[in-house]
Amino acid sequence: MTQPAPRIVTVRQNILRANDTTAAENRLMFAQAGVRAINLASSPGAGKTALLERTLRDLSGQLEMAVAVGDLATDNDAARLRQWGAQAEQIVTGTICHLDAGMVQRVLPLFNLAELDVLFLENVGNLVCPSSYDLGEAARAVLISTTEGEDKPLKYPTMFNTADVVVITKMDIAEAVEFDLGLCRENIDRARPGVPVIEVSSKRGTGMEAWYDFVRGG
Amino acid sequence: MTQPAPRIVTVRQNILRANDTTAAENRLMFAQAGVRAINLASSPGAGKTALLERTLRDLSGQLEMAVAVGDLATDNDAARLRQWGAQAEQIVTGTICHLDAGMVQRVLPLFNLAELDVLFLENVGNLVCPSSYDLGEAARAVLISTTEGEDKPLKYPTMFNTADVVVITKMDIAEAVEFDLGLCRENIDRARPGVPVIEVSSKRGTGMEAWYDFVRGG
Repeated sequence: MTQPAPRIVTVRQNILRANDTTAAENRLMFAQAGVRAINLASSPGAGKTALLERTLRDLSGQLEMAVAVGDLATDNDAARLRQWGAQAEQIVTGTICHLDAGMVQRVLPLFNLAELDVLFLENVGNLVCPSSYDLGEAARAVLISTTEGEDKPLKYPTMFNTADVVVITKMDIAEAVEFDLGLCRENIDRARPGVPVIEVSSKRGTGMEAWYDFVRGG
Repeated sequence: MTQPAPRIVTVRQNILRANDTTAAENRLMFAQAGVRAINLASSPGAGKTALLERTLRDLSGQLEMAVAVGDLATDNDAARLRQWGAQAEQIVTGTICHLDAGMVQRVLPLFNLAELDVLFLENVGNLVCPSSYDLGEAARAVLISTTEGEDKPLKYPTMFNTADVVVITKMDIAEAVEFDLGLCRENIDRARPGVPVIEVSSKRGTGMEAWYDFVRGG
């Protein structure tokens, strides 16, 4: 009547093991080239692309940056990012709901890693599946916007659990949406005790210095 | 070096075939009991639970309603919904990013289907994976909030493609977040030509009549 759950679990484990091997290869390539790879994950519409646009604009001339961006369809995000003079390559994932290490590895030949300082890996908008897939990144940033509700870190623990930093976005409309910052920070800390939290408005440019320190690896 | 993609595709197809069989069983049970099952899907934080809270409150006494709600962790949503006097059962999905027909089937014995008019199946917050899993529902509602960006129907076509109705939520803050309603409606129509679109604010109660007509099956 129902699905053979144990078999699916085995298959998932095999897929994840294969992914981890490829991720280790990516990590080695990034280390050898001296590139800091940052994996950005969030819900759809939390503002990953807006944060990257601001970052590319503000740090241009200080850091050599590029982006690989995953989407099910469209290359809207890559087009938005290229406006700021950085190389941006789209990974079209089709019906796959996350980036995996193989997708990243296949797009790497398009970049000149030796010339880069930072490579952003903008994940598919999804607070669940990307959490299980190591891309070989040096650090993982999870974004949550003030419009999503303060309970999201508790409801999506697998994603927040794996974050090296949590970025609260759209702080400029926090008041309009009656966002409870204290509660949100408390829930983030319950999901991932001690994780650094940065509050930003990509639109107004507030709070960006703490984010730029993270981007630089500080 | 990379994952054996064809094998994954085969496994996915087998999983989906097993799911469709179970979904057909669910659909038959719902039909025999005279229950209208409605699958609600959206990004995290788009307001599925808020819409249901308002619905349970406003239609109480007119319709017998209950909810099965999926979340990776926590039973916050079920607790919120029970406040309005309706039965709400939590399906904890663990690391699984969507409801499937088997999860729904396993929770059905907790309900007295013969007494129900409507059973809401509130999916895990995810604009990708739930699209592939038929739960046996009579109709599928996809929610998009005014805070997510007008391009989401184009970026997540698999989800919007399968919608029987699209509900635009949080209309009360549309102005504060500079939401472009015309553009959003245009993009919804490109992803799913002719699909009915309903604009609501669950907070203020605006636009709810069109949604209630849909709930009743009108």
